[in-house]
Order: sequence, then C-alpha cells, then structure tokens
Amino acid sequence: MKKLVNKVDDAVVESLAGLCAAHSDLIRFLPEYKTVIRADTRTRSAKVAVISGGGSGHEPLHCGCVGFGMLDAACAGEIFTSPTPEQICEAVRAADGGKGVLLLVKNYTGDVMNFQMASDILRAEGREIEQVIIDDDVSVKDSTWTAGRRGVAGTFLAEKIVGAGAESGTALGELKELAERVNANVRTMGVALTSCTVPAVGKPTFDLPDDEIELGIGIHGEPGRERMKLAMSREMVEYLANAVLDDLPFNEGDEVLAFVNGMGGTPLSELCIVYGDLKKILDGRGIITTRSLVGNYVTSLDMQGCSITVMKLDAMSRALWDYPVQTPALRWGR
Amino acid sequence: MKKLVNKVDDAVVESLAGLCAAHSDLIRFLPEYKTVIRADTRTRSAKVAVISGGGSGHEPLHCGCVGFGMLDAACAGEIFTSPTPEQICEAVRAADGGKGVLLLVKNYTGDVMNFQMASDILRAEGREIEQVIIDDDVSVKDSTWTAGRRGVAGTFLAEKIVGAGAESGTALGELKELAERVNANVRTMGVALTSCTVPAVGKPTFDLPDDEIELGIGIHGEPGRERMKLAMSREMVEYLANAVLDDLPFNEGDEVLAFVNGMGGTPLSELCIVYGDLKKILDGRGIITTRSLVGNYVTSLDMQGCSITVMKLDAMSRALWDYPVQTPALRWGR
Repeated sequence: MKKLVNKVDDAVVESLAGLCAAHSDLIRFLPEYKTVIRADTRTRSAKVAVISGGGSGHEPLHCGCVGFGMLDAACAGEIFTSPTPEQICEAVRAADGGKGVLLLVKNYTGDVMNFQMASDILRAEGREIEQVIIDDDVSVKDSTWTAGRRGVAGTFLAEKIVGAGAESGTALGELKELAERVNANVRTMGVALTSCTVPAVGKPTFDLPDDEIELGIGIHGEPGRERMKLAMSREMVEYLANAVLDDLPFNEGDEVLAFVNGMGGTPLSELCIVYGDLKKILDGRGIITTRSLVGNYVTSLDMQGCSITVMKLDAMSRALWDYPVQTPALRWGR
Repeated sequence: MKKLVNKVDDAVVESLAGLCAAHSDLIRFLPEYKTVIRADTRTRSAKVAVISGGGSGHEPLHCGCVGFGMLDAACAGEIFTSPTPEQICEAVRAADGGKGVLLLVKNYTGDVMNFQMASDILRAEGREIEQVIIDDDVSVKDSTWTAGRRGVAGTFLAEKIVGAGAESGTALGELKELAERVNANVRTMGVALTSCTVPAVGKPTFDLPDDEIELGIGIHGEPGRERMKLAMSREMVEYLANAVLDDLPFNEGDEVLAFVNGMGGTPLSELCIVYGDLKKILDGRGIITTRSLVGNYVTSLDMQGCSITVMKLDAMSRALWDYPVQTPALRWGR
C-alpha cells in the first residue's frame, strides 16, 4: 500500500486538520469530535442548520461541504465507519442557532442508527431536529451495509441544494420537503475499475481481475450488480445510464443536472470522456441537460472508477444549484 | 491498463469535447485544432489575450483553465507531446482581439521550440506576441525533455495570476513583467508513489518497486533526484519543502501561497495530510501562508503522488489571486 499518510491511525484527523488549515477562511476544525464547522458563525441564528456526516474515505464529502450555501457542520467517522451519536450531537450543538436542524443521512445501517440515536438525544434537549435519508443508488436493493438502497453521489447534490435552501431562509418544515424532493428526483450508479485500499487494512478491499470491472459498485467497495470484461467508456456509460434513466424514469423533455463523479483515483481527463458519452445518451433520449458537474466529489479512497448521477431539475432546484456557495469542495458566485 | 476511454487514439479529443460539453457556459471546443476558447468573446477586444498549451495528460491544465480571469485559449497536444506550431497559431488567431497576446509556455524543449515557431509566424502576420517560459521545478537542472528547469505546477498559479492581470486591463508589456515576476517567485518539487500509464503505451512509464518512491519526479514521469524507501508523509514533505524553500530562498516573514498539487491518482484526503505537514514546516520557518490551494490541478495522467509549490506573494499578486475567476478548474467570486 502506497499512500501519503503518517501513522495510519492519525490519517482521518490529520486530513481534516489539513483541510481546515487550507481553508481557514471558511471552516474550523473541532478535533475532539472530528467535526468541521463554519468559520463564519454570524448567520447561525438566522437560518436552519444543515448538518451531515458519515464515514471517512469519501472526501470532499461531507466535511469539505461545510461553508456558506451548503452545510453548517459535518462530522467524520473513521474510514468507512459511521460517526458516533456523540459526534453527531456535538456537531449539532456547535451549529444549531435555534432555527432548527436538518440532518442529511446517507442510507447505511450504521449511519441511520447513529443519526437516529443522536436525534432522540437532541430532541430531548429541546432542539428541533428533522432528518432525511438519501438513497439514490439504483444498483442494488439491499446490500452489505444497507437495508434498501445506498446513499451515494446524489448526497453531494442534496447537500448543495438543501444548503442553498437553508441559506436563502427556507424554514425547517419546507426544507425537509425540499430534501425529500431532491432525493426523489436523483438516481446514481457507479462502476469500479479497481478496488480501494483501506489504510488500516493495507490491501485492496476486493479482488478485481486486470480485465474486469464491477458494475453497480458501492462507495465502500460493496458488491454491485455484476462483473463484466473491461469495456470502452461508452459501453460502461450506456449500462450505467440506462439503469439510472429507466429507474425514475427520466423522460423526453425532462430538464436534468448530469453529474459524473470520480471515485478518487480516476483523473479528470477520463471523467470528461465519460461525461461526453453520457451527454450523447441524454441528448439521444431528448433529456435536456442544463446543469452539470464533473469531478471527484464522493470518493471511495483511491478507487478507480466513477458514478453517473442524473437529477431532475425544476425552477426551484435549478435556482438553488446556482445559488452562491463557498466551501472547500465547491465555490462560486458570491 | 484500466482506463475510462473509448479508442485510445480518440482519448484527447473526446476528453476535451466532454470538458467543453460540461462547461458550455464557459468554453467552446475547436476540435480540428484541439483548442479550447472562451464562450464569451465580448471582452476580447478590450484586453490582452493570455494563451497557453502543452501536451495532454496534465488536466485540468491548460484547457480547463480557459475562462473569465484566466486563459483566453489553450491548445492541447497528444499525451505528453507539444502542440504543433499550427495549433498554437490557430489558438492565437481565435482569441487575439488586437490588444496583444501573451503566451505562457512550460519549459520543455518541444513546447519552447513550437511556441517560438508559432510566435515567429504570428509576428509576421503583424500580431503583437510576447512569451514567458515557466520553469519552477527545483528538482533537476537539465532533464530528459528539458534544457534547464522544467515547468510544472507553478504554471497553474501563473495562469491564474497573469490571467487576472489581463482581465483587469494590464497592458502587454506590464503583463509580461508580471508573468516573469510570478515565475521568479514560485518554486515546486514533486514526488511519485507510482508511475503513470500512457494510454497508447498501455503499461507504466517507469518501474517503481512497491516500497519505493521517486523524489523530484517530472510530470511526464521523467526521473527525479533520487529514490528512497516509502516514508511517512511528513518525511516526504520535509524533503520536498526544504528543497523548495531553500532554493529561492523563502525567508522568515515572507508571505506565500502554499499549493499542494495532486498528480491525478491521489485522493484529496491524502493531499490534505500533505498540506497539514507543509503548513507546519512553513510555520516553523516563520513563513506566513495567507493563500493556499489543495487539489489535482497539474496532473500526470493517473500517477499517484503530489508536488509542493510555494509562491512568494506581494500586494499585487495577492489581489490577482483573489480576482474573480470562472473556469472549469477554478471558479470563485464574480
């Protein structure tokens, strides 16, 4: 295993400390709780706090999504491990300004359980807490770590749009409905060319022969739908895009955001080829792509591969996508 | 070799087409000349055109740097191969609005020769052309493909700052001086954990044992200073940072931008660990880091590794770094 790390046990904390040091204008690190909060807390009392968290290894999700127009706080578990209820409670206590809190939770058994326990504790403190589960992965129904569908790259879009909704003053009840609507309108499926390697394990999570790929891969290396021989980009993209588009389904005339997400070890140049192939399929179906995103946003450590996400847009979600944002992962237009 | 590509021969054009499709609000693709220009050409006649180009495989450099506040056009050669004089001429003809053209050229023999030939042709057409060579890599003096130092990650900073200078109305002569000053104040050195794999070759460019790293690596996999056993991040960073900081040299009290650049296959979480280690060294030397950048910006295909760049800032370069920018690679604050 070759990684840019010091002691493996310190990797999560050191990575978050480095992220916060590089973006000290935007975020602050609370190392005791592996929690990142906004540096600018002036707006705290004026808005609903949007908070997320999850296992590490998916950077820049979630801690890189803290900042103006996106999350108010995020807490990080160990690699591929849910944060504890205590961490989630501390993230909420650090960011709750009294207008209520919306928790965005990826659908994994550990995350769902720990966020639920935290919600119970926080409500008992008199806080107003709502949560929405994100489950955009169409590839498998139940998986290694999930009852129901997994939450994957669609989470990043949800954090952007819901975060913008909160920033623009949307109240908690309506914000929860917005988050549910985003989740209802977003679908994702991924492909792995190689396994990731968890630092503490030191060897690849799964074996994938040199001439095979895994379709429907999870972001922790969980099994997908099937393996096939290494194919051209357009064949892989067709498989993924058809599964995604037929699931909602997306129809001719629908307006969408198309998102090609890298798994961490795949360079931008390849993701752009995938985007070009995806765009042709969307055009061919008469689906109108008005927004797009291409890059490594919801990763799986050093895995090579990508996922394809398509989200139906309406006037509100489009405006909130365009809304100013200032985070390590995404910044524009303030 | 596992890559998200279709036919290997089409990879460069398909990748650029995908980049432009994903950012059609910002850029347009001229496929015949593998050139990317700004979508918004309204400002063309009001400013000096800043243009760059080079071999493919370093994305988002250079074509992802086209847009408001950075480049006006960029042309791409094949993987690790200079663009032809004809391509460079066409990029200039497409973007020159009559206020002069500044070419930013990485110091590789092929690039320098072809940009020089293009400059001669373009001057003969009556155009006002200046060029500045970027050679920020401290690791080796002459290398496989270079007389003198190589141009590496510092090029990205030069394109940002010089592009902002042009956008804000700086005239050609002064802009050339600015580019020379940026180059004089920026130093870089990189490390490879793995080789890159050129698609048309299909196997790693060089052999690097599982327990070794190459210090001073070039962005095409050219040999560096030395190999050593795989070490902790802070040991690698100390080696690179000392070489970079002692070269200019950077002194106590200097204000700098610190840039940790990924080589393409290294995830953000690891680059953040490197940034944290670099920041400690800068702090320890009393060097004041007021700006930073962490991510994959000047890559070497799928190579794992990173480079460390430090640039001395003054009031002007700091303001130009902060200047609004809207490109695929970088966008903020307009």
